[in-house]
Amino acid sequence: MKKNKPKYMQIIDAAVVIIAENGYHQAQVSKIAKQAGVADGTIYLYFKNKEDILISLFQEKMGYFVGSIEEKIAGKQTATEKLYMLVETHFKILSDDRHLAIVTQLELRQSNKDLRHKINEVLKGYLMLIDKIILEGIENGEFSSSLDLRLARQMIFGTVDETATSWVMNEQKYNLTDLAKAVHQLLINGCGYH
Amino acid sequence: MKKNKPKYMQIIDAAVVIIAENGYHQAQVSKIAKQAGVADGTIYLYFKNKEDILISLFQEKMGYFVGSIEEKIAGKQTATEKLYMLVETHFKILSDDRHLAIVTQLELRQSNKDLRHKINEVLKGYLMLIDKIILEGIENGEFSSSLDLRLARQMIFGTVDETATSWVMNEQKYNLTDLAKAVHQLLINGCGYH
Ligand SMILES: CCCCCCCCCCCCCCCCCC(=O)SCCNC(=O)CCNC(=O)[C@H](O)C(C)(C)COP(=O)(O)OP(=O)(O)OC[C@H]1O[C@@H](n2cnc3c(N)ncnc32)[C@H](O)[C@@H]1OP(=O)(O)O
Ligand SMILES: CCCCCCCCCCCCCCCCCC(=O)SCCNC(=O)CCNC(=O)[C@H](O)C(C)(C)COP(=O)(O)OP(=O)(O)OC[C@H]1O[C@@H](n2cnc3c(N)ncnc32)[C@H](O)[C@@H]1OP(=O)(O)O
Repeated sequence: MKKNKPKYMQIIDAAVVIIAENGYHQAQVSKIAKQAGVADGTIYLYFKNKEDILISLFQEKMGYFVGSIEEKIAGKQTATEKLYMLVETHFKILSDDRHLAIVTQLELRQSNKDLRHKINEVLKGYLMLIDKIILEGIENGEFSSSLDLRLARQMIFGTVDETATSWVMNEQKYNLTDLAKAVHQLLINGCGYH
Repeated sequence: MKKNKPKYMQIIDAAVVIIAENGYHQAQVSKIAKQAGVADGTIYLYFKNKEDILISLFQEKMGYFVGSIEEKIAGKQTATEKLYMLVETHFKILSDDRHLAIVTQLELRQSNKDLRHKINEVLKGYLMLIDKIILEGIENGEFSSSLDLRLARQMIFGTVDETATSWVMNEQKYNLTDLAKAVHQLLINGCGYH
């Protein structure tokens, strides 16, 4: 399996840096190869083209991200606590890697329809995790039973995502992870009874 | 003043259609000219280049949008009602023009730093209006006094914006304006006392 070869992750990590620094459209495959320390031809043993690199890197990182949230929330009893872990992990993963943050908040927002649908299929894995937490909160009686699942999901993802984009646009100059508690509070209020 | 010449708005309206249908990068100035029914050279009497067209159209439409919200909320007493008018007007303006919706939700999300900063300077006018409503709500005692202004703004804009993008990505096939009430409720809950 190609994914198990060591160069696969090496190329993906190089692509994050090159795409963040040059923008997706100016990120030539040869630049990615150079950053990864492999020959140009080697890239094509692993990926069909640049688009395949973008989708694959999002898939890899998203798989890791969703897995690590699932692990962290497994031990938590309430949907409120689970949502906190989700917000905190989301902010932390972006804070830990400034290139990754630029790629997620700016470069993955492609307007090309085909490419965007592929990106959003990957995003779906994360949105389904958010849905699971919301449904659990409704079942538990933590969240309002009149909540619209899709709108609650769009509020949660939209708020976390906008907070992250604002931070990237402000040159990542304040501590994003420090905001997790206040953002979580807004969202829990939003989902609650009134 | 160039803006008062009739062809200025004619070109802007043509640009919305051409950019929505072709994507910003494939939207040649000659296509915009053809759609507007003017000679290619005429475009350059009004705009420096394609980037200038994109920024100008966002400025024009945003000015109109912010003005129309300001008008509608002038008669309202509470921040809660004002926020409702804002959410409803936001959804309605996008629902009324499917090309405009594609431009705001997909084509204005440019990753080029320079261009993005110019776009976000225009967005600032809208965000400041949101801030005004939040501050009024805090002053009135409608919203929690412990609210962080920037995070509350990011929740409000992020939620409305994500709801709109999901609707565009789902081919605008459900009624967006019908969601205004439920989205407003989530936001009011988010800003309230607990
Ligand atoms: C065809 C057109 C039709 C339009 C018609 C209208 C139709 C309906 C409306 C549709 C709207 C959608 C439009 C599309 C927008 C495209 C752009 C996007 O992608 S939008 C989606 C993605 N979103 C975006 O791209 C928006 C990203 N945001 C921004 O780029 C900026 O917020 C800004 C430029 C908008 C305002 O900037 P500024 O005036 O500077 O105000 P700030 O508050 O940001 O900063 C003030 C200070 O506070 C610091 N600080 C901030 N937050 C925090 C915090 N939480 N904790 C601690 N600190 C924080 C910050 O570092 C700064 O510090 P310093 O520098 O003073 O030391
Ligand atoms: C370097 C990578 C590092 C990653 C590591 C991780 C780091 C942290 C995480 C960072 C995350 C940020 C990632 C960047 C994402 C880039 C993409 C964006 O721009 S994101 C920002 C912008 N956001 C986006 O681009 C997300 C846009 N959303 C989507 O594209 C889709 O929701 C989907 C593809 C995600 C799921 O699709 P689907 O599975 O279909 O599920 P749906 O529920 O949508 O639809 C089910 C049905 O319900 C209908 N319906 C929906 N809502 C409503 C409603 N309110 N009322 C009534 N009806 C509604 C709908 O029409 C459909 O009907 P039908 O067809 O069954 O008849």
